[in-house]
Amino acid sequence: MALINENYLKLQAGYLFPEIGRRVKEFTDANPDTKVIKMGIGDVTQPLAPSIVKAFHEGVEEMASAESFKGYGPEQGYSFLREAIAENDYKANGVNSIKADDIFISDGSKCDTGNIQEIFGNDNVIAVTDPVYPVYVDTTVMSGKTGNINDVGHYNGIVYMPCNEKNNFVPALPHDKVDLIFLCYPNNPTGTVATKEELKKWVDYALDNKCIILYDAAYQAFITENGIPRSIYEIEGAEKCAIEFRSFSKTAGFTGTRCAFTVIPETVVAYDNKGKAHKVKPLWNRRQSTKFNGVSYPVQKAAAATYTTEGKKEVADTISYYLENASIMRESLEDAGYKVYGGVNAPYVWVKTKNNMSSWDFFDKVLKETNVVGTPGSGFGPSGEGYFRFSAFADRDHVIEAMTRVKNLS
Amino acid sequence: MALINENYLKLQAGYLFPEIGRRVKEFTDANPDTKVIKMGIGDVTQPLAPSIVKAFHEGVEEMASAESFKGYGPEQGYSFLREAIAENDYKANGVNSIKADDIFISDGSKCDTGNIQEIFGNDNVIAVTDPVYPVYVDTTVMSGKTGNINDVGHYNGIVYMPCNEKNNFVPALPHDKVDLIFLCYPNNPTGTVATKEELKKWVDYALDNKCIILYDAAYQAFITENGIPRSIYEIEGAEKCAIEFRSFSKTAGFTGTRCAFTVIPETVVAYDNKGKAHKVKPLWNRRQSTKFNGVSYPVQKAAAATYTTEGKKEVADTISYYLENASIMRESLEDAGYKVYGGVNAPYVWVKTKNNMSSWDFFDKVLKETNVVGTPGSGFGPSGEGYFRFSAFADRDHVIEAMTRVKNLS
Repeated sequence: MALINENYLKLQAGYLFPEIGRRVKEFTDANPDTKVIKMGIGDVTQPLAPSIVKAFHEGVEEMASAESFKGYGPEQGYSFLREAIAENDYKANGVNSIKADDIFISDGSKCDTGNIQEIFGNDNVIAVTDPVYPVYVDTTVMSGKTGNINDVGHYNGIVYMPCNEKNNFVPALPHDKVDLIFLCYPNNPTGTVATKEELKKWVDYALDNKCIILYDAAYQAFITENGIPRSIYEIEGAEKCAIEFRSFSKTAGFTGTRCAFTVIPETVVAYDNKGKAHKVKPLWNRRQSTKFNGVSYPVQKAAAATYTTEGKKEVADTISYYLENASIMRESLEDAGYKVYGGVNAPYVWVKTKNNMSSWDFFDKVLKETNVVGTPGSGFGPSGEGYFRFSAFADRDHVIEAMTRVKNLS
Repeated sequence: MALINENYLKLQAGYLFPEIGRRVKEFTDANPDTKVIKMGIGDVTQPLAPSIVKAFHEGVEEMASAESFKGYGPEQGYSFLREAIAENDYKANGVNSIKADDIFISDGSKCDTGNIQEIFGNDNVIAVTDPVYPVYVDTTVMSGKTGNINDVGHYNGIVYMPCNEKNNFVPALPHDKVDLIFLCYPNNPTGTVATKEELKKWVDYALDNKCIILYDAAYQAFITENGIPRSIYEIEGAEKCAIEFRSFSKTAGFTGTRCAFTVIPETVVAYDNKGKAHKVKPLWNRRQSTKFNGVSYPVQKAAAATYTTEGKKEVADTISYYLENASIMRESLEDAGYKVYGGVNAPYVWVKTKNNMSSWDFFDKVLKETNVVGTPGSGFGPSGEGYFRFSAFADRDHVIEAMTRVKNLS
C-alpha cells in the first residue's frame, strides 16, 4: 500500500499567494472595469538585456548543428559560467576563498534552498527569521524536521527569530540550540540589510556551535550603500560554515529564464551521528549528480553574458531602474505619513500600517481604495503583522500611478 | 551542530560512469593517438530539429521586449505545452484519461523520478528491476527508505526483481510486499519492451495491492512494433495506480536543452497511516509549487514545436536515424556470433558476452581491442552480469566503424 509523506499534511492550506489571488479575483470579478496594479509578487517586468539575448540566441544556434551541439552538460554547470561567477561575483569583490569548483549552477534559488535540506539529517534544528520567505519553512516541514503548526502560526521544532524595528530587522542570536540557520540579506520581505558587524556575530556563532548558515543573497545586486556585504564570504570564517545562494532571477531578469547558483566552499563540514566531520560539498555534488541534470546550455550562455563588459552595464541599468522605483515608493509612502523600511538596498519596501491596522485589513483597504495589490506582512510570519510589502519590480508608469493613488488613501 | 543525512553514507562509492571514465582515461593516457568511439552513456548527438530551433529563437526573442517578456511562469508548465502533450501524446494515441491538468512540465525525468519519492513516506517498500537505471535506486537510498548495501550489491529494504532471458526481461510479480514499483519500458538498459498483457498483470497487481507504479516511458518514441504500449495509461485501470515519466531528451534531442514531464491522473491515490486515501496529484503540485519554479519559457516553446506537423516529421526522422544505428549494431553483433536483445524498439542494444565472460572483462577487452566504449551490464545490477550495453546515439560513421572493429574481436 503506497503511503504518503505525512509531513505534507502539516502544511498550512491557506498559502499566502493563492489567498492574495483569491481576494484579487473576487475584487476584479466585482469590478471588471477597474485596472489593478500588481506590486505583490517579486517578479520582474523588464526584458532581458541585449547582450543576454544575443548570447541566448547564440546558444540556441549552437544546438542547431551537429558540430556545436551540446548534449548532457556537467551537472554542476559549465566551467565558462562557474569561472565567470568566481571571477566577477567573488574575486572582483575581494573574496578570494571561492573557487569555480565551489559553485554549482542550478535552475533556481527556490529549488536550491529547498533541496539543500536533503543532504542534512532530520535531527537538525532549523532557525529562520520571522518574517521569512515561506519556502524555507515549507520545505523544512516537508522534509520532516518539524512538528505541527501552533496557535501563533509557528511550526513546532523550528526556531523562529523575530525581526522588527527594535532589532533593525537583524535577529538576535538564538537562545535555543540550532543547527542550520537561514539568513537572507538584502532581506525578503523587509528589504533591509545586515552590516558586516552583524553578520560577523552570526559567523562566529556558527563556528562556535558547529552550525551551518544557509545564506540567501538573491538580492545582493541591489545593494547601493558602501560597506554592506554582498556575500557572506566577506566575513572571515564564513568559508567554514556558510552556504550561499544566488540567482540571476532578480539581478538579470531571469525569473522566466531560470538560472541560479549555490556556493559550497571545500571547508564547510557537517557531522555524522558519531561526531565525525564530513565535507558538505561532495554531498551536494552527489545530490546534484544523482537528482539533477544541469541547466539548459543556452540559458547558461545567456547567464554568462551578464559578466561581459556590456552585459554588466546593461544589467546595472535595469537594477537602477528598479531602485529608482523603490525610491519613488519610499518617498511617496513617507509623504503619506507611513513609516517605511527597505527599498534602499533592495527591491522591496516594507511599510508599517497606521493605527495598528492588521496586514490583511490594509491589503483589503489598499486593493479597494487604490486598486493596488501588495503583500500582507503577516503572510511572512507573525512578526510581519502590521506591515505590508510593496515590490519595486513594476513598470515606472505603474509605480507612479500606484503611489499617486496610495497617497490619497483614506 | 549541523548533521549530515546519514543515508548518503550508504551510497556505493564506485559509481558506474565515473569508473568507466577512469578506465577510459587510463587507456587514452597510455594510447594518446588512438581514437576512442563512445557508445556508453545514452547521450544524443544529432542537433535540435529546425522547427525546434526556430521556436526556441522565437521564445528568446519574446524575452527581449517588455511587451512579450515572460517572468515567472506556472510551476506546472505553460498551458500551451501541457495541452499539446495531452492532445498528441495521449489523446491521439487513444488515451483519453489524461488531461492537460494532469501533466507537470519539468527539467528532466532524472529529476522527477528522484523527486517523486519526496511525496511518499519512508515506510514504503520500493521495487525495482535488476538490472535497473541506477537513479531509482540511489534516490531511494538517499531518501532513507533502505538499509545498507549487501554482498550481492543490493540495498537491504529494496525489492529487486530480476530481468533476464528466462522472463524475457519483464519481471515476475513480487512475492514480498511492495508499495512503489519502478518500471521502465522500453527499458534502459536492456532495450526490451513489455506487451500490453505483461503490463496488465502489473496494473492489476498494483490495484489489488494499492501500490503505485512509477512508469518511466522516456524511450517510448523508439517503439516501432505495433501493439507495444507507448504509455502505461493504455492499460485499463492504470489511471488509478500509475505515474508516468516522459522526456524530450531522447525523443527530441533535449539532453542539453532540458525538458520533461510527469503525468499524475486525478484518480491516483496513496494512503496516510490511518488508512485514509489522499489524491497524489495535489501533493506533487504542492511539491513542485514549493520547490520548483517552472522550466525556462523559451525551452517550453521549443518543446511545444515538437508537436507541430513539421516538428513531428523532423523528430521522427532523427528517431529513425538512431534506430537504423541500432539495426546496424544488432546485425553486426549477431554476425559476430553474439546473442543480442533490444535495439528494435529502443536505442539500446543489450549483448550477452561469450563464454560467460564478466561484464567488466568484456568492457576492458572491447576497449583495448576495438577502442570502443560501452557499458558493462553488471553496472546496472547483479542480474546484468555477463551482459553489455551499446548505445545507438552515436554518429552513423562512428557506429559503422565501431561495429567493423567489434566484428574482429578475438
